[in-house]
Amino acid sequence: MRFSARLASVSVLLAAGALAQTGSLTDRYRAVSAKLIEASLADAEGYKRLEYLCYRIGNRLSGSASLERAITWAADQMKAAGLSNVQIIPTKVPHWVRGVESARMIAPLEKNLHMLGLGMSIGTPPGGVTADVVVVPDFDALTALGRSKIQGKIVVYNEEYQGYGPSRVYRTSGASRAAELGAVAALVRSATPLAMQIPHTGNMAYDEKFPKIPTASISPEDAIMMSRLTASGVPVRVHLEMGAQTLPDADSGDVVGEIVGSEHPEEVVVIGGHIDSWDVGQGAQDDGASIMACLNALSMIKKLGLQPRRTLRVAFWVNEENGGRGGVAYREWIGNKIADQVAAIEMDGGAEAPVGYGASVTPESMEMLKQIAKLLEPVGAGEISEGGGGSDIEPLINSGVPGLGERTVGTHYFDWHHTESDTLDKVDPQDFRKNVASLAVMSYILADMPGRLKANPPQQGGRGRGRGRGQQ
Amino acid sequence: MRFSARLASVSVLLAAGALAQTGSLTDRYRAVSAKLIEASLADAEGYKRLEYLCYRIGNRLSGSASLERAITWAADQMKAAGLSNVQIIPTKVPHWVRGVESARMIAPLEKNLHMLGLGMSIGTPPGGVTADVVVVPDFDALTALGRSKIQGKIVVYNEEYQGYGPSRVYRTSGASRAAELGAVAALVRSATPLAMQIPHTGNMAYDEKFPKIPTASISPEDAIMMSRLTASGVPVRVHLEMGAQTLPDADSGDVVGEIVGSEHPEEVVVIGGHIDSWDVGQGAQDDGASIMACLNALSMIKKLGLQPRRTLRVAFWVNEENGGRGGVAYREWIGNKIADQVAAIEMDGGAEAPVGYGASVTPESMEMLKQIAKLLEPVGAGEISEGGGGSDIEPLINSGVPGLGERTVGTHYFDWHHTESDTLDKVDPQDFRKNVASLAVMSYILADMPGRLKANPPQQGGRGRGRGRGQQ
Repeated sequence: MRFSARLASVSVLLAAGALAQTGSLTDRYRAVSAKLIEASLADAEGYKRLEYLCYRIGNRLSGSASLERAITWAADQMKAAGLSNVQIIPTKVPHWVRGVESARMIAPLEKNLHMLGLGMSIGTPPGGVTADVVVVPDFDALTALGRSKIQGKIVVYNEEYQGYGPSRVYRTSGASRAAELGAVAALVRSATPLAMQIPHTGNMAYDEKFPKIPTASISPEDAIMMSRLTASGVPVRVHLEMGAQTLPDADSGDVVGEIVGSEHPEEVVVIGGHIDSWDVGQGAQDDGASIMACLNALSMIKKLGLQPRRTLRVAFWVNEENGGRGGVAYREWIGNKIADQVAAIEMDGGAEAPVGYGASVTPESMEMLKQIAKLLEPVGAGEISEGGGGSDIEPLINSGVPGLGERTVGTHYFDWHHTESDTLDKVDPQDFRKNVASLAVMSYILADMPGRLKANPPQQGGRGRGRGRGQQ
Repeated sequence: MRFSARLASVSVLLAAGALAQTGSLTDRYRAVSAKLIEASLADAEGYKRLEYLCYRIGNRLSGSASLERAITWAADQMKAAGLSNVQIIPTKVPHWVRGVESARMIAPLEKNLHMLGLGMSIGTPPGGVTADVVVVPDFDALTALGRSKIQGKIVVYNEEYQGYGPSRVYRTSGASRAAELGAVAALVRSATPLAMQIPHTGNMAYDEKFPKIPTASISPEDAIMMSRLTASGVPVRVHLEMGAQTLPDADSGDVVGEIVGSEHPEEVVVIGGHIDSWDVGQGAQDDGASIMACLNALSMIKKLGLQPRRTLRVAFWVNEENGGRGGVAYREWIGNKIADQVAAIEMDGGAEAPVGYGASVTPESMEMLKQIAKLLEPVGAGEISEGGGGSDIEPLINSGVPGLGERTVGTHYFDWHHTESDTLDKVDPQDFRKNVASLAVMSYILADMPGRLKANPPQQGGRGRGRGRGQQ
């Protein structure tokens, strides 16, 4: 016991020494961060902007008129918040439209299925497709059944939710995997832990090697029902109609605005999220609250009369949901000034209570972030963990820019994700303000502090690497 | 301290004395209840019946073909379980049909509202009604606004959920209260603690003194949205179309079956729930699981070769949801044999984990129930509380029959209640079996025990008195 106690004492001394040596960011920004947190928690304007976005503009899929209204409005809001160099970085975006759609069980009894076509899916032929379903729990089961059992059928993926990452693959790749074996359509159990007869849409992609077949999400309940029926030997027959089509690319753009740096205006910390959403609900948690929180963070800094030494930029990237064109366009716009991109923060996991940030940076940089994060403890956001990022900033991260993902508790995020129920009421005003406070402090310090973060050496793998909890 | 300790010792002695004096039901039925619980927890047949009801027959509103299919099937199931005197007690039932319906916000932006017409509502005129909305949090606010502000408007009740009882009144009475002040329609925030863009339907009733106006439930999200918009001074305009109509009464009936008593076949303990449901979802928790659990309880008793001294009857009452005709028909069918009705148990709060029973009986009878309930502790159902009952057995209770309501934890019941999401997957098989066990033990002992329960003296008030947690 005494020996252990002595070891513990040595550890405490070492820890204290390390803290004294590197505690400077915490100390240096203690006063300003307290002010930013106080102002953020007292602010009402940010949530009002979010209310306008949700209730007056609504959802905003790439190619839609409401997205373009949102973009124009967002630029105005940035100007109204006193930001400089407000502009739209133009890009073409995919223009997928849902059209009229429905799925109906016609045997063993007649009932409407709760469905939402998946983004980028083709439509059905006029009049729809009608076929018996084959239900599989996963790709292994699909493969085991083989072409003889799948040919001409509608494949239903009834994968039990294991977390968004593992479940999402059925949405993105399920159609082509089924088409490879001759299926005429694919229905995918929604990637969600909560069964409330709500389908969750999201993006899919075709493997060009196989025929394109229409694909839609269905509610967990409907997937379970079809699974149990067929498991009991009861044939299930479904009629699917989808009017989905992909139109020529539309004009759109990222919206950016700045607080220009006082000493190194050419060096930039960018924070943001995506302005587009799916065409259901209001895109409140995904990702309206995030972009409004990011804008509000800069607004708080402006209101306190602060000006960081480097430029602090807010970006509302476009087309995160079904193409990622906004992130690519932003990277192209940066061009050869990439070395001046000091850090990029993406917030794309909703605005539930913040817990901190994930980052893919060197151990020394992690230590710097932890010093900053100590200042975020009053709003519960003091945790720095490995592996942050976000799909909009992935082109930056892949070019060596240190990337962070803002993280929240994520308790209900995937209950609402990509559904009709992603609405303003899901965003708790106090949680929203805590996120603003966290973003204001983190982004201000990154833009002002003496040193710079260093990214981990780039890895191979691209999309999907180091992403935050609740993204795309 | 010593004085207190001495008092405590006296209490312990008194309690032990009381237990010794009245513990006989616990002891008398310990062995048989253990057998019933063991058999019930091992049974798979009950849940399979529920699966058939939910997945092969589906929802079953009064007047529908599926209800009549359910009734025929239920009688067959009772016979297959070996019950005697299986029969249908005929009654006419209201025949309300929903028709095509929709509600659309047309200002300040266009979006579909998530709506379900309320049962027994009239439809709109052809082409629908279009009007600005007035949002009120409660009836007081409606009254305060008065006719000048309500005339010609669609009233939206945005009462924040305070529990089903307080919230339900807006659904049942909201239309007439609004019509009294000249409203053209009423939209009612769904009575639920969970906002998932799902409207919850349910019954309504017109006050004949005022004009009849169409009325529908809307999702909490849509109610909140309209409330916040109008509170900000933004006019909200809605177009409502409902094809609802009430057709002539339809033929239907209660389904009953028995285990005939060995000594007093004329004395009857009845247990049951309602076979009808709303025309959405599968009526799984409300009230399919209950009737299947009650049937299964008798099935367990039969399988163990038990025969109680009195008759044990299971009843599937019809039309609980929008008329209560089944409960009335049952009481009429009993006629002047009412004194032989020993007890009535209703289960109409879903089949989540059971906690026990509520009862409106004398203190001596409560003590007897508590002795029985001790035997239910292995399945968590050992709690006896005041105020049980159920709307189907209310005509019996009002005639002096001791009434019990089977009670569950009710954790999620009102998340699903009267929605598309009241589906089989919500019924946990093990919770279902625990309910069967609890019902088997309680009903067997009530039908077999030496004494009889005594009801509390009847109170005035009728419908709504002494009902269980999650009913109608």
